[in-house]
Amino acid sequence: MDTLLDASTPVSEAALVAIAYMPTRSLPTLMNDDFARRLSDADFMRIAVWLAQKSFDEGGCPIGAVIVDNATRRILGKGHNTLVQENHPYHHGETSALRDAGRIDFGRTTLFTSLSPCEICATLLSMRGFCRVVVGDVTNASGTEPLLKARGVRVDILEDARGIELYARFRAEKPELDLEDWKGLSATR
Amino acid sequence: MDTLLDASTPVSEAALVAIAYMPTRSLPTLMNDDFARRLSDADFMRIAVWLAQKSFDEGGCPIGAVIVDNATRRILGKGHNTLVQENHPYHHGETSALRDAGRIDFGRTTLFTSLSPCEICATLLSMRGFCRVVVGDVTNASGTEPLLKARGVRVDILEDARGIELYARFRAEKPELDLEDWKGLSATR
Repeated sequence: MDTLLDASTPVSEAALVAIAYMPTRSLPTLMNDDFARRLSDADFMRIAVWLAQKSFDEGGCPIGAVIVDNATRRILGKGHNTLVQENHPYHHGETSALRDAGRIDFGRTTLFTSLSPCEICATLLSMRGFCRVVVGDVTNASGTEPLLKARGVRVDILEDARGIELYARFRAEKPELDLEDWKGLSATR
Repeated sequence: MDTLLDASTPVSEAALVAIAYMPTRSLPTLMNDDFARRLSDADFMRIAVWLAQKSFDEGGCPIGAVIVDNATRRILGKGHNTLVQENHPYHHGETSALRDAGRIDFGRTTLFTSLSPCEICATLLSMRGFCRVVVGDVTNASGTEPLLKARGVRVDILEDARGIELYARFRAEKPELDLEDWKGLSATR
């Protein structure tokens, strides 16, 4: 099957947007494996940031994540925070991507997250055996990278300026939502 | 409205089963506040165990949880592990009950769990500000109680013999599922 994105297509911003919005199971209808192999770490991070943008546009918390197979570079799961969208007291970018991926062996995958993980998610990523975690923003939040490293997870910082700007804007505009997402409603009393 | 369970109804095993299976939002059609106030901690734990039994009967991991308002003793959320049922790599009894409860202030609630929490869930419960956690089984698993206490969460052990027996049976019958639920598929390689 011919796909819109193949070996000869430029890796454009429009391509990354389309990948972010396409359901994971339907990605093979949009791009083939040749295209996937040409995506850089910065491209996957940009996809996570576009997922964060999607959540922001829906009135939610702008944090996205993408899970990639280390060997094939195929996207196995992706998602964004759904505190507002699903009225969910703990559904961060990372858990959203894990739910999307389902029951797979995360030991052969890398997770790209647009924001430094909270302590719950850092514990989750280490207990699900992730090989590597790439963090797109340690400017607005940080602190769990040592925890991940101490448990044998490789951590790379690959900051995305657009993602950092987006999260800073969200925090300035909706500080209570930001606090609730990190520490729960009880912390906002 | 008259309800099946009211001030004069015995707190029977059949009543606890019906409460476990009734959707949380529909509980007021089954029992009124007078009945709720007569439920003991052991009764709420038994409801969590019935939710664990429901999950076991569906072929899943038998762990259930119930979130109760400290003042009114109303059930605000409940659920069970859905690793198998939702193909979900991290949806434990605790997260299931939290999702069911939605965005509420957990600082005024108690969570009853049929099994000692994993480290991810213990971190989650402390970061969502739970006032108290009641654990129904420290025989098949334990270890995160000190973490919870160190973060100011009151922890009570209230073991339920039926829940303990059920989890031991599950672990003996499906050791790989038990391991995957705790540590992910990568740990089962």
